Amino acid sequence: GLSMNTFESPVSFSKLKQGPDGLVPVIVQDYKTSEVLMMAYMNELAFEATLETGKMHYYSRSRKSQWLKGETSGHFQYVKSLYSDCDNDTLLAKVAQVGAACHTGSRSCFFNNLVKKEYDDTNPLMVFEDVYQVILDRKANPKE
Amino acid sequence: GLSMNTFESPVSFSKLKQGPDGLVPVIVQDYKTSEVLMMAYMNELAFEATLETGKMHYYSRSRKSQWLKGETSGHFQYVKSLYSDCDNDTLLAKVAQVGAACHTGSRSCFFNNLVKKEYDDTNPLMVFEDVYQVILDRKANPKE
Repeated sequence: GLSMNTFESPVSFSKLKQGPDGLVPVIVQDYKTSEVLMMAYMNELAFEATLETGKMHYYSRSRKSQWLKGETSGHFQYVKSLYSDCDNDTLLAKVAQVGAACHTGSRSCFFNNLVKKEYDDTNPLMVFEDVYQVILDRKANPKE
Repeated sequence: GLSMNTFESPVSFSKLKQGPDGLVPVIVQDYKTSEVLMMAYMNELAFEATLETGKMHYYSRSRKSQWLKGETSGHFQYVKSLYSDCDNDTLLAKVAQVGAACHTGSRSCFFNNLVKKEYDDTNPLMVFEDVYQVILDRKANPKE
C-alpha cells in the first residue's frame, strides 16, 4: 500500500544549479515500468514539500504557484527515489503514479509520436502494459 | 546493426513551444531498458540535423553551439523514436546508446541518488543490468 513517507536529502536545493527563473526541471518516471510520465519544474519550496510529504510538488510556470500533483485529480505521485544528474541541473524522480500522470487522462504526457523506427519493445513490463491497454479497449469497444 | 536512418516528422520544430531561449528540453531514454540517460536541449537546427542523420544533435547552452552527441567520444545516440508531450514543450527521445551517455563515463547522467525508499526494481532488464555491474566490479576488484 501507499503510505506517508518523509525523506531527507543529503543535497539541499540551493546546491542544485537552478535556471535563471530559480527552477530545476524534473523528469518523472514510473518506478515499476520505467515509463517516462511527464516533465515539470520545482522551486525550493516545491522540493522541500516533496521531501516532507513524500508526494511530488511542482512549481507551475504558467500559474506562477506551487502545486501538489494530484491535489484536484487525486492522481498523486508517491516518491520512490530522487536523483540529480552529473552537473546537478536536472532531477529524475521515480514515482508510484496513482491513475494518469497527464491532465488529458493519458498515463504519460508523451503520447505524440513524431518519428519511429520499427523495433520490438523489449521491456516486458511495457509489453504487458500494451496488451493490458488492448484488453481495456476491447472491453470498452467489444468486437464480434 | 546500427545503420544510417533519415526521418521525417509530421510536426516541425516551429510547432513546438520553445523556451525564451528558443530551445526545447529533450529527455533521452535507452530504447531497450527504458533507463533515462540524460537531458539536453535542441534548437531548430539540432532538431533538423537529428532527423536528417538519425543521430541525436543538441544545442549546448554553455558552449552556445550545436553539438553532435558522440562526435568526439564516439558515443553516438541513434534515434529509435521521438515523442512530444501534451503541451508540446518537451521532447522524449528513445535511442540506441553507443557506450556511455554521460561525459563522466557513467551510462546514465542520473547517478547522484538523493533519496530512496526501499523497493525491488521490477524492470527485469535493469535487474540484469545491476547484476552485470556487480560482475564487472568483482572482476575489477576480486574478493576471496
